[in-house]
Amino acid sequence: MSSLSADPQSITVDLGQRSYKIEIGDELLPQIGGRIAELHPGSRVVIVTDETVNGLHGDTVRHSLADADIASATVVVAAGEKSKSFADLEFVVDEILAAGMERGDVLVALGGGVVGDLAGFAAGITRRGMNFVQAPTSLLAQVDSSVGGKTGINTARGKNLVGLFNQPSLVVADTSVLNTLSDREMRAGYAEVAKYGLIDRPEFFEWLEANHAQVFAGGPARAHAVALSCQAKADVVKADEFEMGSRALLNLGHTFGHALEASVGYDSQRLVHGEGVAIGMVLAHEFSARMNHCGPEAAERVVAHLKAVGLPTTIDEIPGEPLQLQQLLSAIAQDKKVQRGALTFILTRGIGQSFVAKDVPASEVEAFLQLKLAA
Amino acid sequence: MSSLSADPQSITVDLGQRSYKIEIGDELLPQIGGRIAELHPGSRVVIVTDETVNGLHGDTVRHSLADADIASATVVVAAGEKSKSFADLEFVVDEILAAGMERGDVLVALGGGVVGDLAGFAAGITRRGMNFVQAPTSLLAQVDSSVGGKTGINTARGKNLVGLFNQPSLVVADTSVLNTLSDREMRAGYAEVAKYGLIDRPEFFEWLEANHAQVFAGGPARAHAVALSCQAKADVVKADEFEMGSRALLNLGHTFGHALEASVGYDSQRLVHGEGVAIGMVLAHEFSARMNHCGPEAAERVVAHLKAVGLPTTIDEIPGEPLQLQQLLSAIAQDKKVQRGALTFILTRGIGQSFVAKDVPASEVEAFLQLKLAA
Repeated sequence: MSSLSADPQSITVDLGQRSYKIEIGDELLPQIGGRIAELHPGSRVVIVTDETVNGLHGDTVRHSLADADIASATVVVAAGEKSKSFADLEFVVDEILAAGMERGDVLVALGGGVVGDLAGFAAGITRRGMNFVQAPTSLLAQVDSSVGGKTGINTARGKNLVGLFNQPSLVVADTSVLNTLSDREMRAGYAEVAKYGLIDRPEFFEWLEANHAQVFAGGPARAHAVALSCQAKADVVKADEFEMGSRALLNLGHTFGHALEASVGYDSQRLVHGEGVAIGMVLAHEFSARMNHCGPEAAERVVAHLKAVGLPTTIDEIPGEPLQLQQLLSAIAQDKKVQRGALTFILTRGIGQSFVAKDVPASEVEAFLQLKLAA
Repeated sequence: MSSLSADPQSITVDLGQRSYKIEIGDELLPQIGGRIAELHPGSRVVIVTDETVNGLHGDTVRHSLADADIASATVVVAAGEKSKSFADLEFVVDEILAAGMERGDVLVALGGGVVGDLAGFAAGITRRGMNFVQAPTSLLAQVDSSVGGKTGINTARGKNLVGLFNQPSLVVADTSVLNTLSDREMRAGYAEVAKYGLIDRPEFFEWLEANHAQVFAGGPARAHAVALSCQAKADVVKADEFEMGSRALLNLGHTFGHALEASVGYDSQRLVHGEGVAIGMVLAHEFSARMNHCGPEAAERVVAHLKAVGLPTTIDEIPGEPLQLQQLLSAIAQDKKVQRGALTFILTRGIGQSFVAKDVPASEVEAFLQLKLAA
């Protein structure tokens, strides 16, 4: 651990003309005004945030902008996944226009994944695209939604079915703001950190097995985990920005996870995204074993690690009414990873050896889920 | 005229990876299925159209798709500018998802500019972007909105303030379907044809002065005018796809025109887009003369030609309550061509010699419009 630096780290997401930097470290939010003044001189800023984050960090950002002589307006939505809706999108766009923002001005998405997805989408369509900076305030957003440019909203037919690929011009990931997260939010974000190990970095998964307590505690181990996660995602995104192939690896655990979230009606009291991903990653490893791609020990190791950090690992840990098989199957069929009717899943040959499996028979998925629901 | 060909013409909009063809000629709509099968083999199609166009041409397209063994669904919106709304966008996206369309499937925008703008936007955000073919059925759409990839909707704060740059993979401009247009629609589209002459092709404007009757009558002269307009727009778009500079020339007449449309509340009984552009082009030439960029004879020639084809050329020809100066000025200030508070207009040094004028003093615009409203 002595080799980990406490200095801010910078990762470049290399996408040609759309390249941008992710800056990671403690106490970066108070410096955001200066960074924006450098990148977009003369621009005004509209902060899009939610009620909770605005109360915690809104003034920090506004003061930093004011110190850099940047005029700003703030648009506030309700906290929670329900804000990823057409109604909220229209509200945010209208407020940005009401504030007189122009194409050269900057939208700062200050918040977790919901704010980032909604605000990034709004930035992409307001005046056919304005500048956009991500200031993710949850661990989930810092390691996942802030990298790769996916933005969007949910509809009654599923999660993230409407949106854009829209790359920000900068991501400011202040790791000290994570101290304001609840344990549950921190754990949920951690599921995505573990995911990068499980996709293709077995040594990172091993490091997490040994060091997860320090990641939760904060300081250099946390910044290291965030930076390594961002780098892992940036590498995948660079290879396949528009998700024509290998980028699908990032969906490890997500097809099952999204189906679980849809089945509880996106009720975050029952299940937040990262918890769905945690259970989904376990299911993906168990399903891989069932399909003879790997032995049972990979899933056992995933279960042990996720349990150690306090994440759920089985469907029956989701509180409330038991989930229904048909609901799960129809959510999977509607999932955006379906191509021409065939089911695509991310399966694995072991820890850190995931792959894109096309043409997975729906009957196998059904039989597997039937077993898991009966368990 | 004997040199004009009756064969279909093809123009390439050269935008690198986003390049596409515009096919122009009589009776192309009955061949659209075969063209889509070539471009996007194995894909399904969702046709987005309006009630009027669906009644006139929907079956032609559906039969052509069926003949090419392409499964299709149809989404129908109300005819008219009011359909460029958030509510209609949500409706269209939801219907596309309800029809089970996937990212590799194709949206065909069958209709005029409203359908093209709305459907092109929907194609760009459904599943973060599906394939998209424009089948423009109005002269306005064939020569303007089908080229260049601008899509979008209106909000209470102005026209086209929300949208995307989203290039289609093909444009099928069937010049025989223009026979189903009313005289008023045909004239409105013609305003944009004349615009290309006025921007930078004085010899084309001269040709139109001599041949406008044949363009209205149909046949080779019409296809020639459509093809030359598409080529003119493609050249401008190629030089500046994302409207950072010279593309603004396409807005000749549009800042005034949009303000007129906004002032009548987008009431198409009183003013359609092309009529607003016609009056706007006259105003742009008159304002250029007032600002000493050209003499009065350019505006006189524009007025004479637009009158000859039956287009309005003065604000007081707009039926209903007289327009108010403050409404016009506030619409201009809200226009998307405003950059950091300074007014940008397209002005001209004479027929076919337009240029982008930045920092036009708002006081000059106000004094000019005050005069025109008092006239």
